[in-house]
Amino acid sequence: MEFEKDKFEDECGVMGISSARTDIAALYVYFGLYALQHRGQESCGIVSNNGGELTQKRGMGLVGDIFTTTELKEIEGNLAIGHVRYSTFGDKDDVKNAQPLTVNTKDGKIALGHNGNLINADALRDMLQDDGVVFITDSDTEVIANLIARNYKQGIVEALKRVGQIIKGAYAMVLTAGDKLIGVRDPYGLRPLCLGKCSSGYVLASESCGLDAVGAKLVRDVEPGEIIVIEKGDVQSYKIDVKVHPSRCIFELVYFARPDSVIDTVEVHDSRRQSGKLLAGQDKSKDIKADVVFGVPDSGNSAAMGYAEGAGIPYGVGLIKNRYVGRTFIQPTQEMREEGVRIKLNALKSNVEGKSIVLVDDSIVRGTTSKRIVDMLREAGAKEIHFRVSSPPTSYSCFFGIDTPSRKKLISSYMSMDEICEYIGADSLDYLTMDNLKKSVKNYNDGYCMACFTGDYPMEVPANNNEE
Amino acid sequence: MEFEKDKFEDECGVMGISSARTDIAALYVYFGLYALQHRGQESCGIVSNNGGELTQKRGMGLVGDIFTTTELKEIEGNLAIGHVRYSTFGDKDDVKNAQPLTVNTKDGKIALGHNGNLINADALRDMLQDDGVVFITDSDTEVIANLIARNYKQGIVEALKRVGQIIKGAYAMVLTAGDKLIGVRDPYGLRPLCLGKCSSGYVLASESCGLDAVGAKLVRDVEPGEIIVIEKGDVQSYKIDVKVHPSRCIFELVYFARPDSVIDTVEVHDSRRQSGKLLAGQDKSKDIKADVVFGVPDSGNSAAMGYAEGAGIPYGVGLIKNRYVGRTFIQPTQEMREEGVRIKLNALKSNVEGKSIVLVDDSIVRGTTSKRIVDMLREAGAKEIHFRVSSPPTSYSCFFGIDTPSRKKLISSYMSMDEICEYIGADSLDYLTMDNLKKSVKNYNDGYCMACFTGDYPMEVPANNNEE
Amino acid sequence: MEFEKDKFEDECGVMGISSARTDIAALYVYFGLYALQHRGQESCGIVSNNGGELTQKRGMGLVGDIFTTTELKEIEGNLAIGHVRYSTFGDKDDVKNAQPLTVNTKDGKIALGHNGNLINADALRDMLQDDGVVFITDSDTEVIANLIARNYKQGIVEALKRVGQIIKGAYAMVLTAGDKLIGVRDPYGLRPLCLGKCSSGYVLASESCGLDAVGAKLVRDVEPGEIIVIEKGDVQSYKIDVKVHPSRCIFELVYFARPDSVIDTVEVHDSRRQSGKLLAGQDKSKDIKADVVFGVPDSGNSAAMGYAEGAGIPYGVGLIKNRYVGRTFIQPTQEMREEGVRIKLNALKSNVEGKSIVLVDDSIVRGTTSKRIVDMLREAGAKEIHFRVSSPPTSYSCFFGIDTPSRKKLISSYMSMDEICEYIGADSLDYLTMDNLKKSVKNYNDGYCMACFTGDYPMEVPANNNEE
Amino acid sequence: MEFEKDKFEDECGVMGISSARTDIAALYVYFGLYALQHRGQESCGIVSNNGGELTQKRGMGLVGDIFTTTELKEIEGNLAIGHVRYSTFGDKDDVKNAQPLTVNTKDGKIALGHNGNLINADALRDMLQDDGVVFITDSDTEVIANLIARNYKQGIVEALKRVGQIIKGAYAMVLTAGDKLIGVRDPYGLRPLCLGKCSSGYVLASESCGLDAVGAKLVRDVEPGEIIVIEKGDVQSYKIDVKVHPSRCIFELVYFARPDSVIDTVEVHDSRRQSGKLLAGQDKSKDIKADVVFGVPDSGNSAAMGYAEGAGIPYGVGLIKNRYVGRTFIQPTQEMREEGVRIKLNALKSNVEGKSIVLVDDSIVRGTTSKRIVDMLREAGAKEIHFRVSSPPTSYSCFFGIDTPSRKKLISSYMSMDEICEYIGADSLDYLTMDNLKKSVKNYNDGYCMACFTGDYPMEVPANNNEE
Repeated sequence: MEFEKDKFEDECGVMGISSARTDIAALYVYFGLYALQHRGQESCGIVSNNGGELTQKRGMGLVGDIFTTTELKEIEGNLAIGHVRYSTFGDKDDVKNAQPLTVNTKDGKIALGHNGNLINADALRDMLQDDGVVFITDSDTEVIANLIARNYKQGIVEALKRVGQIIKGAYAMVLTAGDKLIGVRDPYGLRPLCLGKCSSGYVLASESCGLDAVGAKLVRDVEPGEIIVIEKGDVQSYKIDVKVHPSRCIFELVYFARPDSVIDTVEVHDSRRQSGKLLAGQDKSKDIKADVVFGVPDSGNSAAMGYAEGAGIPYGVGLIKNRYVGRTFIQPTQEMREEGVRIKLNALKSNVEGKSIVLVDDSIVRGTTSKRIVDMLREAGAKEIHFRVSSPPTSYSCFFGIDTPSRKKLISSYMSMDEICEYIGADSLDYLTMDNLKKSVKNYNDGYCMACFTGDYPMEVPANNNEE
Repeated sequence: MEFEKDKFEDECGVMGISSARTDIAALYVYFGLYALQHRGQESCGIVSNNGGELTQKRGMGLVGDIFTTTELKEIEGNLAIGHVRYSTFGDKDDVKNAQPLTVNTKDGKIALGHNGNLINADALRDMLQDDGVVFITDSDTEVIANLIARNYKQGIVEALKRVGQIIKGAYAMVLTAGDKLIGVRDPYGLRPLCLGKCSSGYVLASESCGLDAVGAKLVRDVEPGEIIVIEKGDVQSYKIDVKVHPSRCIFELVYFARPDSVIDTVEVHDSRRQSGKLLAGQDKSKDIKADVVFGVPDSGNSAAMGYAEGAGIPYGVGLIKNRYVGRTFIQPTQEMREEGVRIKLNALKSNVEGKSIVLVDDSIVRGTTSKRIVDMLREAGAKEIHFRVSSPPTSYSCFFGIDTPSRKKLISSYMSMDEICEYIGADSLDYLTMDNLKKSVKNYNDGYCMACFTGDYPMEVPANNNEE
Repeated sequence: MEFEKDKFEDECGVMGISSARTDIAALYVYFGLYALQHRGQESCGIVSNNGGELTQKRGMGLVGDIFTTTELKEIEGNLAIGHVRYSTFGDKDDVKNAQPLTVNTKDGKIALGHNGNLINADALRDMLQDDGVVFITDSDTEVIANLIARNYKQGIVEALKRVGQIIKGAYAMVLTAGDKLIGVRDPYGLRPLCLGKCSSGYVLASESCGLDAVGAKLVRDVEPGEIIVIEKGDVQSYKIDVKVHPSRCIFELVYFARPDSVIDTVEVHDSRRQSGKLLAGQDKSKDIKADVVFGVPDSGNSAAMGYAEGAGIPYGVGLIKNRYVGRTFIQPTQEMREEGVRIKLNALKSNVEGKSIVLVDDSIVRGTTSKRIVDMLREAGAKEIHFRVSSPPTSYSCFFGIDTPSRKKLISSYMSMDEICEYIGADSLDYLTMDNLKKSVKNYNDGYCMACFTGDYPMEVPANNNEE
Repeated sequence: MEFEKDKFEDECGVMGISSARTDIAALYVYFGLYALQHRGQESCGIVSNNGGELTQKRGMGLVGDIFTTTELKEIEGNLAIGHVRYSTFGDKDDVKNAQPLTVNTKDGKIALGHNGNLINADALRDMLQDDGVVFITDSDTEVIANLIARNYKQGIVEALKRVGQIIKGAYAMVLTAGDKLIGVRDPYGLRPLCLGKCSSGYVLASESCGLDAVGAKLVRDVEPGEIIVIEKGDVQSYKIDVKVHPSRCIFELVYFARPDSVIDTVEVHDSRRQSGKLLAGQDKSKDIKADVVFGVPDSGNSAAMGYAEGAGIPYGVGLIKNRYVGRTFIQPTQEMREEGVRIKLNALKSNVEGKSIVLVDDSIVRGTTSKRIVDMLREAGAKEIHFRVSSPPTSYSCFFGIDTPSRKKLISSYMSMDEICEYIGADSLDYLTMDNLKKSVKNYNDGYCMACFTGDYPMEVPANNNEE
C-alpha cells in the first residue's frame, strides 16, 4: 500500500425503504448504497421484499460492480433493504459473508443487514452451537438471526426486544419481514441510524446522506435502544428495555461519516470545522508563523478549513488525490516508491514550495502514511510542516464495529507526541485536546463513546484484546 | 429449448480425496469434477481441508468457468471434497445453494457435499425451525448439516449413524471434518458412490470415471447404508443400523452415468449394450427390415450398438450433435425452428436418405424432442423410422434426487404406446420390456429401484406429488 | 497438453447471408458460426450491413463467449457476414486480428472474412508498403482488402477479378459492400465454400452444415475461381480469369469438415466410411483377428465404422471423450499424467479388457497422442492393438490455410512405418494407401490437392519452408 | 445524466518512457496513465517496445479495468508508450479505435499515441483513399500513420518534419519506432506535452502530473513545432519548419489539466486561483455581501479559493461529490430527479442554510447542470446565490481536440448574461473578463488560443461547423 489506508475503517452501512410504490424500492436502496459506499467497499447486497417474497442479490465489490444491469428496474416490491460491507472475515473469495442475510424461520423469511459488532457473539454462538445450531457464515449477523428466530413466534417486535437484551455490543440494523421494514439501534447508540420520509414512504439509513440520495427528508435519528417498525405508511416506535448511558461513536464525527451527513443532530462537516478552529486556538500561544493551511484529502479538509478560519491563515490545497485509484491498482514496489513513484497523492508544488505549512489530518493511526506525506511535502520544497491532528491520540482499539489495528500498532500507544513528531518528520505536532473535542460536538452531553482515545469503554470488552 | 433437454436429469456429483500429499488434493478434486460434470452443470465448488482449516470456493457455472486460475495449485491440504450441481432452488443468481456446504459447529467445522433428495426434509426442517433453527440455503444439505451438528459431540461416526436413522430418502455424501474424509450412502443405495485408491491415498466419487480421471483404481462401491471413514491412509467402515432392501437407481445405468463408469459392479456401457441387444430380440418376430441402426447422441449410442449387434443390422451415425452449444446459446424462436433452424442436432443426410432406420434412445420423457428428431430425419429423406427405447415407459416421477417433470407431463403416463408412436411420427415404436431391462443388468438381484417405470417406490413418497 | 491437439488444424470458417428480412441476418450468421465453430475457436466476429451501415462485433473466444446478450436480436440489416478463426498471429491478447475485417475505402465500406492463406502475401505486403501503405493487423486479409480498395472504383466484381489474378494461394471469402453479399473461392478451390437458399434469401458458408443450421438448402458449391454476387434475391456468377487444375483440399474430407457436411458434392461421413472400408480391405490378406473396431473420438469414428463394416468385425466404443474440457482447463503436470491423471479421454474398460482391437484414427501428426492412447488401452487390458490410419502418412507441411507443424516434426517425415509402430507401441500399423484414398472420394477426378501426403503442391510454395 | 457531464471534455492523454532498464517501462507508463486518466476514460492502451518488438494491450474502460493482472510486470522493453482516450467515434463496442495505434510499415513497426484533432484529416483521408489506401479505424491517427509511413524511408525525423507540414490542427504525439521514443507537438502548441527525467531515463507526458507519478522531474515543455527524439539516454530536438504564432489551449488551464500540473511553465492551480482572485476584484464595486465562497467540485475549487482570498470572504464547502459514481451507474429517471434523487452531488446543508453564497465554477456550457446546482442549493436553504464563472462565456466550438457541443447548444451563444442568470436561477451572475483571464496566465504573451471565447481561431476551421 502506498498511501492512506492507514485509517480506522468503518465496517458497514445499511439502507432500507418502505414505499407505497412497488417499482422503486430496490432502485432507491441502490442509490442509497452509492451514498453510503464510503462505509464499506468489499461487498454489497440488496434484498427486495414483495409481499413476503424475498429476492436477493449480493456480490463482492462496489455497488457499481455488482448491480450493472437493468435487473433492479425489474424487481417488484414495496420493501427493500441493502448493505455495504467493509471487511471480510473467513473466506475472502466467498460471497457467503455478504449481507443482507436472508434466513428461513418457522414463521417466515427474514432479511437483515447489520452494522456493528457484538462483544458477546462468541459466547452466544457457543451457546447456540451447544444447542445444535450450525453456522454457515462467519458473521455476528447469523447469531442475531438465530436469536430472532427463536423468539419470532411472539412477533418480530417482541423478538427484537428480547434479542436486544441478550446481545451486547454495537449494532444498527435494518430488517424486513412480512410487510414490515424495521430499524434497530443498540441501547448505547454506538452506530448511527436515521429515519427519513420520501414522497412514497419511509427510509432508514446509516447516515442522512443516504436519505438525501433518494430525496428523503431527515425525520429524526433512531434513538439508542429504539426499534422502529414501518408498515404501510405507519411508523411505530418501541424500546429495548435496557438502561444505559448513550455512547454514540465519536469517530463517526471525526472521520467515518460523510461531511454532508447529519448524525444525531450534529452536522458532521460543521463539527469537524469546529474541531479545526479549536485546534487553531491551541496554537494561539505558540509562535507558529504558517503561510497556509492544508488538509490531508479528503478527511482532513473540513478541519483544515476550520483551522484556517480560526488562525486567520489562508486555506489552500497542497495535496492532490488521484480519484481513479481503486481495488485493481497495481501497487508500486518499495524500490519504485523510493524512486518517487506516487500515484495516490501528489504535492501541489506551487502551493508548497518555500511555504510554512499547517497540515491537518483527522487522525494518526500507525504513522506510516503521515510520514510519507510529510516527506512528499519536503521534497516539494516545504519550508516548515506543522502537523495538526483534529482529534486526540488514538491509543485504544475499538470493539464496536470499527476496524482498528491491535493496540500495539497504534503509534500513540507506544510513542510520545515528541517521538511521533520526530518519526513523521514534522517541525511540530499537536493533537486536539479531549476538552476541545468535546466542545466541537454541539450535543456532547447527549453521550459519546471516546474509548479509542481514553480506553474507557462503555461496556466490558474482551480481556485478551486489550493488553498493553 | 431446441433439443434434448427433454430428459430426466441427475442432480449432483460428489468427489473427495484423502492424500498423503498436501499439494494435490484440491487439484485432483478439480480433475474429478471435470469427469463428473455430466451430473450437474449449474454450480460447483471445492473445499480444501488443511489440518482442519477449510478453504472454500464455489460459483455458478461449469468447473472450467469457476476455477480458471492458478489458485488451485496454491491450495495446501491433505483433504478436499467437491461437488457439481444440476438444479438451483430459490434464488437463481445467488451462489448460496452451491455446494459443498461448510458449517461451523460447536465441535469444529464440517464441509459436506450431497447428491440426492430427502423425502422428509420438510418435516425435519419444520422440527428444527420449531427449535429455533434458521435456514440460510434452500437445500436439504443444510438440514443434514444441522442434524449432524446436534449429534457431533459423540463423534462424527456416531452422529452420521444417528442421522442415517432420521433422514429418509436418497443420499450419497462426501464430508470432511477434522482429519477425516467420509463417504456415506443411504441404506437403499439409491445414489451411487465408490471408493478408489491412488498412489498417495484414497478417493471417493459418485462414479468410477471420477476415479479414472485422477489415476485411481476402483476398490469397491460404498455399500448401501455404509459410512466409510478415511483418515491418514486408514479406511474404516461402519453401518447405518437400518434394514431395507437395497434399491439402487436403475436410471443411473439407463441414462445418467458415463458409459465408462462401473457402478455397483455393473459396467455401464455394457449394460446399455445388452439392453439394446435385448431390444433387438423383441423385434425378432416382427417384420422390421431396417437398413441401419442409429442412436440419439450421445445417450442412445451404447444401446444402438447393442441393437445393431443383436439384429445384425449395421450401426451408423444419423445425427450429429453440436459440441459447442452451452448455457450462453441464444435459443432460436419457434418461427425460426419452423423455418428449419437447428443448431444442436443435424441429420447426416447421406446416411439417412432413402433408409429404413432403427432409431434408439434411452428414454422418452415429454416426447417433444423425440418428435423433432423424427421430423428432422423425415426431412432428411428417411424412408422408415422405427423408434426404439432402451428402457420401459417412464410413467412416474422420481423423488430421490432426479429432476423429473410432474407425472402429468410424462407422455407415457397419459398416452398408450400407439398414441405416442403417432405423436412422435414414427413408423413403429417399442420400449424395452421390464423383464429385459432386468436381464440387461447383470446383478439385478442385488436390488434396484424401478419406480420411475412401475410407481413401486422403495419407501413412502409425498402423497400430493403422486397424483394421476 | 494432454491429448488430441496433435492434429492439423483448420484455420477459419466463414458465413454470410443476404435476406429479404432485416431482423434475422446477424442472428442467422450467429447460428451458422455455431455450426462452423469446429473450424476455428480462438476468435470470432459478425458484421451486419444495414443499407451500407456496417455494425461490427468481434472478440477472442468461442461464439458463445462473445455473443451472449440480446444484442444480435437488436441488429437491423439485410446482410451479415461472420467468421470463426483458429490461429492468432502477432498479439495474442489483442483482438485486432479477429475477423471480419472492416475497411473504409474511397468508395465505401467493405467487410470481409477470409479462410485460407496466401503464399505471396509477403511480397504483396512489401509492394504495398513501398507504396506507403501501413498495415494494422498481421493478417493476409488486410493485404487483400488493400488490393480490392485499389480497384474498387471499377466496381467490386472487377476489383475481385483483378485481385484474383494478383493473389496466390488458398482463399474462400465472404464480403459485404453496398447492397451485396459476395462469395469468392480461389481458382484451385483449395478451401470450400457453398451456396444455400433459405426462405428469405441466400446463404454462403464454408460447409453445408452452416446452411443446415439456418434451415437453408444446399444449392451448389461455389466453383473454384468463382465470384458469386447476391443482391436483393438475385444471384450472379463471375469467374476469375485464371486457368488452373482444381486442387481441392483432401484433408477437409479426411479430418476438418463436419461429418454431416457435403463438400464439393462429397458427403463427408460417407467418404470417411469408405476410406475405413478400403482400409479394412488392405488388411484382408493379413492375419488380423481382432474382436472389435474402435475409432479415436471423434475424428476416427466414421472411418472406424467403415472398417468394421468392411472387415466384418463389430464396431464398438473404446474411448470416452470428456465434452467439458475447453480453453480454461488446467493441464495436469507431467508427473500427474504419469500417475494416470487423464481427463480428456478415458478407456471404456469393459470393452477393452482382453480384447484384440483395431483402432482407427484419421491421421498421425507428431505421434505423441497416438502413443498415449495406445498406452491407455494397454493399461485398460487390451490384448492387441492394431492401429489403422484412414489416410496416407502426412509428411509435408501445408501452405494453404492449414496449421501444420514444420516438416521435421511430422513423424512420417523422419520415421518409417515400422518405426512409428514401435514408437506408438502398437502391435501393427497401417495407413490408407494413396490409391485407396483416391477411391474413397467419389469425385476424385474433379481435382484434389494431396500435397500433405505427396509434397506435390499445386503451386509454388516458400522455398525455405520446404526443407527436408 | 444527472450532473456535471455538462463540460467541455479533453479527448486524450499520452505518456511515453525511454528507460535504461527493461523491467519498468510498461509499468511506469501504466502509473503515468493513472495520473492522466482525467484526460480520457473510455479506452486506454500501452505498447511496449523491446528492441523493435512491439507488444500491445488495449481495451475499453479505465486503466484499472484493462490492466488488472501481473502482465505488466512481465513485459520486457526499454521503451513504452501509452494513451487514454475520451471519445469513441464509430463502433462503440469495438476496441479498434483505442490507442496507441501500431502499424507495420515497409521500414518497421511504429506505434503512436495522439492527443488532438486534425482539421484537414478528411481531405488527407480522401487523398490517401484515392491512392488506394484503406482505413481500418475511424481516427485521425491512422491518417497520420499513413503519412509517416510514406516518408519513413528518409528516417523518422524527416518523415515527421514533412508530415508536420501536411497535417493541420492540434496534435501532441508520442511515438516509438526502432530504438527511439519520440514526442511531437504541433506548431501552434495547441495540446500540451512535456519532457521529464527520471533516474533511469526520460519521460514524455501530456501533463507534468504524469511525470510526478513516476518520480520524474520536469525538464521542460516540448515546444510548439518541436520533435523530440530520445534514444539511449540522448535527447535530440528538431523543428517542424512552419512559422505560426503559438496558440496554446487556454482551456487546459481553465479546466482540463490537473491542478498539480505545470503546463508551459504555468502552475495550473495557481492560474486558477489568480482567476478567482481577479473575479473577486470584478465584484469589488458591487454590493455583494456574501457569507461564504464555494467551488463547484472539483473544477471550481481552485478559483473559489482565489475568490475567497480576493474578496476576504471565507472559503467553504457547499457541495459534496460522490466519488463512486462511474460508468456503470444506473441513471435516475427524470421523475426520480424531480423527487429529489441526487447521487453525484449533495448540498452540505449546514454550510448552505441561510447563507449568501458565492458559487464559483470554471465554465457554463449548456447551463443545465448549473441550473440544477443552483436549485439544489436553494432547496438546502441558501439565501442568495451569486454564480461566478472563472472564465469568459464559451460561445464557440473547439476544433482542436476538445469535445464541445455544437455552437447552438452553448448557452452563451444564444443568451445574454442576464438571461443565463435567470435561466439558472441565480441572484447574480458574472464571468471573468477576457482581460482578467489574460492576467491570470502569467506567460499569456507566449501565445494562447482563446477561440472558444472569441471565435478567433488560430487557423481555418470547417465552414459548416461554425454556423450561427
